[in-house]
Amino acid sequence: MKIAGQWRRAIEFDGEVRVLDQTRLPAAVEWLTLRTLDDAARAIRDMHVRGAPLIGATAAYGVALALRDGIALDQACRVLAATRPTAINLRWALDETAQALSGVAASEEAAAAYITAARICDDDVANNEAIGEHGAALLRALGKQRLQILTHCNAGWLATVDWGTALAPIYKLHEAGVPLHVWVDETRPRNQGLLTAWELAQHGVPHTVIADNAGGHYMQRGQVDACIVGTDRTTRTGDVCNKIGTYLKALAAHDNRVPFYVAAPSPSIDWTLSDGAAIPIEERAADEVHTIRGVKLTESPVANPAFDVTPARLVTQIITERGVALPAALLSLFPEHA
Amino acid sequence: MKIAGQWRRAIEFDGEVRVLDQTRLPAAVEWLTLRTLDDAARAIRDMHVRGAPLIGATAAYGVALALRDGIALDQACRVLAATRPTAINLRWALDETAQALSGVAASEEAAAAYITAARICDDDVANNEAIGEHGAALLRALGKQRLQILTHCNAGWLATVDWGTALAPIYKLHEAGVPLHVWVDETRPRNQGLLTAWELAQHGVPHTVIADNAGGHYMQRGQVDACIVGTDRTTRTGDVCNKIGTYLKALAAHDNRVPFYVAAPSPSIDWTLSDGAAIPIEERAADEVHTIRGVKLTESPVANPAFDVTPARLVTQIITERGVALPAALLSLFPEHA
Repeated sequence: MKIAGQWRRAIEFDGEVRVLDQTRLPAAVEWLTLRTLDDAARAIRDMHVRGAPLIGATAAYGVALALRDGIALDQACRVLAATRPTAINLRWALDETAQALSGVAASEEAAAAYITAARICDDDVANNEAIGEHGAALLRALGKQRLQILTHCNAGWLATVDWGTALAPIYKLHEAGVPLHVWVDETRPRNQGLLTAWELAQHGVPHTVIADNAGGHYMQRGQVDACIVGTDRTTRTGDVCNKIGTYLKALAAHDNRVPFYVAAPSPSIDWTLSDGAAIPIEERAADEVHTIRGVKLTESPVANPAFDVTPARLVTQIITERGVALPAALLSLFPEHA
Repeated sequence: MKIAGQWRRAIEFDGEVRVLDQTRLPAAVEWLTLRTLDDAARAIRDMHVRGAPLIGATAAYGVALALRDGIALDQACRVLAATRPTAINLRWALDETAQALSGVAASEEAAAAYITAARICDDDVANNEAIGEHGAALLRALGKQRLQILTHCNAGWLATVDWGTALAPIYKLHEAGVPLHVWVDETRPRNQGLLTAWELAQHGVPHTVIADNAGGHYMQRGQVDACIVGTDRTTRTGDVCNKIGTYLKALAAHDNRVPFYVAAPSPSIDWTLSDGAAIPIEERAADEVHTIRGVKLTESPVANPAFDVTPARLVTQIITERGVALPAALLSLFPEHA
């Protein structure tokens, strides 16, 4: 990813674990050093890091930091698993780490955990780049002179270690010189769309920020050729849990025959679930809705569900690192989970 | 309408024209005196008054102020008609006034215009109260112990002279002691949902504010029994132009078999149009999206369409002052326009 012309990752390790502080963006580019398990847990819980793949990577480093400090693996996993309930990548990364450490001598556990975290990060980059290639081919096949793509929330490199999931195909196309324009949903209440706008601007990708309410209107007017979003958890049957409001965009896409693509690296797929309704939906604090820049705008009660579930029937294709599949055929790409 | 226990209208005349300044709500309750045509035009353009019926009423008083100051009717209508393009009530009120003044002696025009404006206001109150009764019957017929109703934007008494359109049935039910709860969409970018929350709070109606992204999720979970919204312009065929984002809620309602009602007093109906796509959609300033409380949150380009069109096929019933109709049968209630 490119920040002020420099290539970086959203999480880096060079003896210390550093993450880009997303609560400060786009106003300020600041890096946060994670020194302890609690630092890692807090960074996830308070959304200094966010995005399902990046949460997984951060959790993996959180385990390494814990083991280095003599905290038991079980305890580390418990603390990290409790930070956020919806993204399956968190649990996946903890399972991956626990599996990598099984049979490792206690004195070697911390070192092995660092190695595992680095592997999880590298795999994430490779997965996302593959998604970029597969997704770019899918979008090119629409045959448009100038592609108009709508995305919701941020599933760009800020949500991953690098490349992003939903935005990876967009970066691939842009690098290849394909003319395109991205409609960026604001994504209330936390405005992650402004993160998307910021990272697209860093790479010079043409884009326009719109209120979450506006996407359906542009689809009705024929100004959206495709929607592409990420996912925090997708079931084996292709039900897609993603940022609240994704479902509404999928309905509008369906109503206007706009393809609706979901970029899902395999760590985002929950092979244990067949029904999206079983996915726990995180309820976040009311102040995310009622308080803006420190000013409380309403005294009324607030509800703040962070995710919703788009049923598989509204998803045109799921883009994974292994290729593209109809939601109902997702398992054909991952026969080991059949 | 009840403000701090006092009954008022959103526009009042007692020798001076006074409106509640909606740009200051809910933080402060302040009344604005409209002394000239330009005051009235500015109040509409800058959304000190908003809501299709209230825009119409304010325009009618704007004509009266103009005529009193010796400005010609044509000129007054031109200035007022240019303020906002989408709500048909504005043009309707100007036409009503022009018609009422035809054949009136020049010396009597101003007085006749004040009388017409007062009649338009009184008719609006009567229309909305009738909509309240018809809509309340419709909602009662759903047979729920505790009605859960979702509304978008503000179509309450703040958007009208009194009662509101979409909220009138809710006030009627609440007054009758029917247990209910209202999901209030925030309604970015201008947050008119906070106006709805504020007026519901004044009347003690239970409600919860949610991000615009969240309504579909609650419909999927069976927590919405009906949607009800207002309209800025509805075609003779029942296509409904309303605040941007209304279409997305109508899609979700349709997908979850939740009835989607539109409260449309007849001055909101454009009998000249058969296709919602012909309705002009106001594009408002970018800063409504990118600047919050004086701070510019993104340097990216912004688009800001203020309305969208919900096709008649997604509308369950239209509630008018004459009763309730399927969108396709709207003309049966108004045979004089057939």
